Amino acid sequence: MEASHLVWTEIGRKEVYRSRVLSVRDTICRSPEGKDSTFTVIDSPDWVIVVPLLKTKDGPRFLMVRQWRHGSRELSLEFPGGVLERGETGEAGAARELAEETAHRAEGLIKLGTMSPNPAIMSNHVHFYYAENLSPLESQSLDEDEFVDTEPLPPGEVIHGMGRPPYVHALSAAALALYLSRRP
Amino acid sequence: MEASHLVWTEIGRKEVYRSRVLSVRDTICRSPEGKDSTFTVIDSPDWVIVVPLLKTKDGPRFLMVRQWRHGSRELSLEFPGGVLERGETGEAGAARELAEETAHRAEGLIKLGTMSPNPAIMSNHVHFYYAENLSPLESQSLDEDEFVDTEPLPPGEVIHGMGRPPYVHALSAAALALYLSRRP
Repeated sequence: MEASHLVWTEIGRKEVYRSRVLSVRDTICRSPEGKDSTFTVIDSPDWVIVVPLLKTKDGPRFLMVRQWRHGSRELSLEFPGGVLERGETGEAGAARELAEETAHRAEGLIKLGTMSPNPAIMSNHVHFYYAENLSPLESQSLDEDEFVDTEPLPPGEVIHGMGRPPYVHALSAAALALYLSRRP
Repeated sequence: MEASHLVWTEIGRKEVYRSRVLSVRDTICRSPEGKDSTFTVIDSPDWVIVVPLLKTKDGPRFLMVRQWRHGSRELSLEFPGGVLERGETGEAGAARELAEETAHRAEGLIKLGTMSPNPAIMSNHVHFYYAENLSPLESQSLDEDEFVDTEPLPPGEVIHGMGRPPYVHALSAAALALYLSRRP
C-alpha cells in the first residue's frame, strides 16, 4: 500500500515520568511534510483478555468477572484479563489470568487477535483469546489487593448489555467484537 | 446489587505528572477489608468515536480513516474520532470529528453507548455514536499535524479484518461491537 504521505518518523524520545505500572515519554516525530512535533506516549507491559465460554446444563455462559476499577471508580463486569508478566507469552498470560480470576482451566485457547488499546497514546498491545472446554480449579488465586467475583452469564445478555453499566470496559467490548467475528 | 465486598473508597490523590494531553496521579484507596493501597490513574478529556454508514450505489460502506499513530508507530485504519473539546457534548464532538476527518455531515447521530477506555488506569470515558444519512462537505478540516485518508469500506470487510493490521485500534473494535449489537 502506498501511504508514505501518512508516515511519520520518530527522531527522539525522553522519559518524563515512571511509576510501578507505566511510564510516560515525550516522543519527537517528523511529519510526512518534514515538520517536527512532540507527542505524549505511555509505555506499559502488554495486556491480555480472555473470552471464556462455559458449557452448562442451562446452555453456554460467558465467565465474566466483577471488580472495582480505580480509574473509573466503579464496579465493572468484564471478561477476565490483566497485565502480562515479564517474558510471558499472550497464551500463558491468558491461561494464568483465567485461572487466577475465575478458577478455571481451558483445554483450548484460541487467539482472536492483537490490537493497540489506544495506538494514539499507548505503545503496548492487548492480546485477545477465546477459551473453551473449561474445567474448574479449586479456587481463585488473587493478589492481596484484588477482590473479584466470577459470574457465568448468557452470551445474549452480555452482547445486549455491553456499553451500559456494569459493562463499562471498552476492551471487553473489543474482545466481544473479535469473538463475534471469529468464533469457531 | 449487593457488592459492598468489592467496593473501594478513595482517601487521597496527588498529581505526579501533567502534559498538554493528559495528567497522571497517585490515588490512595482503602480496600473492602480496610487496607490502603496506591494506584496510578491517568486523567484525560473524554473521547468520541463515530461509526459512519454511507449508502452508495455499490451498497453500504463504513467511512473509515487511515492515519499514523504515534503510540503504536504504525498506520491504523479506524473509525473517525478524537478528543472532546472543553464543554463539548459527545454528540457535538462526534459531528465535529466526522466533519473534520471524513468531510461528511450526518443527519442522524445515534448514541451507541459510553464506556471506559480502560477503567483500571484511566478516569475518562469514550462515547460511541452511529452516524447515518451522510452528506458530503467540501473538504476535511485537519489540524496542522494531522494527515488522514478517508476510505469507504464494506462492513463485512471491516468486521472480518478487525483485530489484524491495519485494523489495530481496540476502541474501533469496541465501537464495532456496540454497532453490531445496537444497529437500528
